[in-house]
Amino acid sequence: MDILLFVIFFATCIGAGATGAVFPPGTWYETLEKPPWTPPNWVFPVVWSSIYLLISFAAARVALMDGSGYALAFFAMQAAFSTLWSPVFFGLRRLRGALPVMAVLWLAVLGATWTHYALDFWAGLAFTPYLVWVTVAAALNIDLARRNPDVLPLNLARVG
Amino acid sequence: MDILLFVIFFATCIGAGATGAVFPPGTWYETLEKPPWTPPNWVFPVVWSSIYLLISFAAARVALMDGSGYALAFFAMQAAFSTLWSPVFFGLRRLRGALPVMAVLWLAVLGATWTHYALDFWAGLAFTPYLVWVTVAAALNIDLARRNPDVLPLNLARVG
Repeated sequence: MDILLFVIFFATCIGAGATGAVFPPGTWYETLEKPPWTPPNWVFPVVWSSIYLLISFAAARVALMDGSGYALAFFAMQAAFSTLWSPVFFGLRRLRGALPVMAVLWLAVLGATWTHYALDFWAGLAFTPYLVWVTVAAALNIDLARRNPDVLPLNLARVG
Repeated sequence: MDILLFVIFFATCIGAGATGAVFPPGTWYETLEKPPWTPPNWVFPVVWSSIYLLISFAAARVALMDGSGYALAFFAMQAAFSTLWSPVFFGLRRLRGALPVMAVLWLAVLGATWTHYALDFWAGLAFTPYLVWVTVAAALNIDLARRNPDVLPLNLARVG
């Protein structure tokens, strides 16, 4: 594994994680009605940090292999849609608007997991927890949107 | 060029561009004091759309070449930080907080342009307008932060 490649992929993940940090759940999220299986808040940063380390390892492992184009294209795609989700959900409070973002993110992670496996067993294995987690996150987003139909999106144009 | 790769890279760009669409300039941006060389609002979506087409073409062109790992790693990195910038600047209204994001984005675009050139002349050429544009955008961000020292960031935790 090339260390500099790992650093670039991990920096990418930090960019994605930064939206979660600058748009945190906060008091608004506390007021939402949630399913009983909602993970406690502390679980999210722990899981995301682990996933970022694992997928940066996976991408750095395959990046110099022949035919890694699709794997790295899907890596870029999940990075963009993962970065997009937090400001839409926690920033604009668009529970339903976040669903298509989550759907595209899920497809990108599926594509990334599949193409990493095709190149290297360990890289595919390192991507697998992400696919499991994004499936849980998608189920949670769907459930939250259904349980909280009256939540108003934040209209930033109307804010001071 | 592989069309399916182009589609994945362009979808990535759409994810990045979506933050610009869901966090638009709006009335708050109108109130900022701006340098006389600020591009008019209509220029931004036109330039970004052109850049997205050009860099998706560039990445799809190099993705199946040997040694494209670094080029695609920098592509992923610019995608994440480009997606992050709009919600920090237009969402949280953090004119100074957006500067480190812009700095990392600039480095990622420099790295992407360089590594695409190293693989293929046309791919590097297709990335060059992005490097020029992100330099203009960084200069604009710096100037706006300097001209508007009293702008208050939006505290989302305090909003309804």
